[in-house]
Amino acid sequence: MNNKKKISIVLFSGDFDKAIAAFTIASGAAAVNYEVNLFFTFWGLNVLKKTKGRSAIGKGFLARTFNFLMGGFKNLPLSRLNFAGISPKLLTGLMKKRNVATLQELINAAIQLNVNLYACEMSINILGLKKEDFIPEVKEILGVAKFLNLSEGGEIIFI
Amino acid sequence: MNNKKKISIVLFSGDFDKAIAAFTIASGAAAVNYEVNLFFTFWGLNVLKKTKGRSAIGKGFLARTFNFLMGGFKNLPLSRLNFAGISPKLLTGLMKKRNVATLQELINAAIQLNVNLYACEMSINILGLKKEDFIPEVKEILGVAKFLNLSEGGEIIFI
Amino acid sequence: MNNKKKISIVLFSGDFDKAIAAFTIASGAAAVNYEVNLFFTFWGLNVLKKTKGRSAIGKGFLARTFNFLMGGFKNLPLSRLNFAGISPKLLTGLMKKRNVATLQELINAAIQLNVNLYACEMSINILGLKKEDFIPEVKEILGVAKFLNLSEGGEIIFI
Repeated sequence: MNNKKKISIVLFSGDFDKAIAAFTIASGAAAVNYEVNLFFTFWGLNVLKKTKGRSAIGKGFLARTFNFLMGGFKNLPLSRLNFAGISPKLLTGLMKKRNVATLQELINAAIQLNVNLYACEMSINILGLKKEDFIPEVKEILGVAKFLNLSEGGEIIFI
Repeated sequence: MNNKKKISIVLFSGDFDKAIAAFTIASGAAAVNYEVNLFFTFWGLNVLKKTKGRSAIGKGFLARTFNFLMGGFKNLPLSRLNFAGISPKLLTGLMKKRNVATLQELINAAIQLNVNLYACEMSINILGLKKEDFIPEVKEILGVAKFLNLSEGGEIIFI
Repeated sequence: MNNKKKISIVLFSGDFDKAIAAFTIASGAAAVNYEVNLFFTFWGLNVLKKTKGRSAIGKGFLARTFNFLMGGFKNLPLSRLNFAGISPKLLTGLMKKRNVATLQELINAAIQLNVNLYACEMSINILGLKKEDFIPEVKEILGVAKFLNLSEGGEIIFI
């Protein structure tokens, strides 16, 4: 029986600012000894794609087109005031200037603090992707039932 | 005393992709025997409107205009890359191709699995709507206090 | 030991409609005797800025520009159908007509019902702001660890 406090975060959004929020909560919680599960679904999968830029990965023409349009880590937009992708760069600049961890640093911290990264089976299926399309730190691809099971007894947050 | 595990989802968003997320979690949880409450508020009410297309329902000119602009089930936009409503159709195509349940199938599954559908009293009041404007599967129109009461002892997710 | 039921809401969004949702849940929960913590982060901080209109507050040129563009309470956009800021005004009109509390009234109610207002340390740091830039009802500026600590044993909702 595991008595650790637990928090599970579903990152559905692929927005730059919301990814920062998810990893800030995740690494902050892990730092105070929570068990943390991060479950990436649909747009959120962009954060984990191995190819950082736009890339037509996936099975089938439609999926390849959609994945290309979705982009990857380098194309995460700000949820508002994106200005064609300039704002995420400005915000990263501001974060460096203030000595606040950038998104990439937050992700690294989360991984080092043993935050569990999971990817959503159904989204991956729809987008024609496979486990190899994601960074190797993704622990498992799983569905809703398994996710609920892992989250049991803790908080669930949807971002 | 009911010892069933419980999850309550507030669907505030009227985005096509977020509605899919809500019903995927809802039907997935119901399938593994959770009690599931889906609470539709504001934009989320579009999913439940009886008139599937755009329709100027509601009381008063302003509300009728707003309801028309909000649209209904057939006008749910993708939260990103909507391309004037083409993307939800493409996504539905992809889902069919991959043998993943479409939004309408997910809704039907949720209903068959006894997911409870509730609509938010305040939103309905603001939008000048009434219970008859929604599909008959909507169990009740209720406010925050009643919702919290129904959700007690389980998880709450806001989408 | 405090046995009061508890709900903690992270308001990340600066959308007018989502702020209404957050304060409706907050004041509704407080009215039925929940302990309620409202934690404002990033765009959500706009709701609490002392200067209600656009204002170039903050430390440094970049932060001042960004704060100006973000705007304040009077510039909260609707998450959809914003129509250059006309819709939040129309919606407020509809709410008054229906005798539903407006956003400002919901905020006042929440404060009177002892809802705790907290602001996110990291966002404030990034945006170059300080406690004096916010309304005096903001109780404390705090980070993730403290937030999780305050939220323990209750529900957490991310909006």
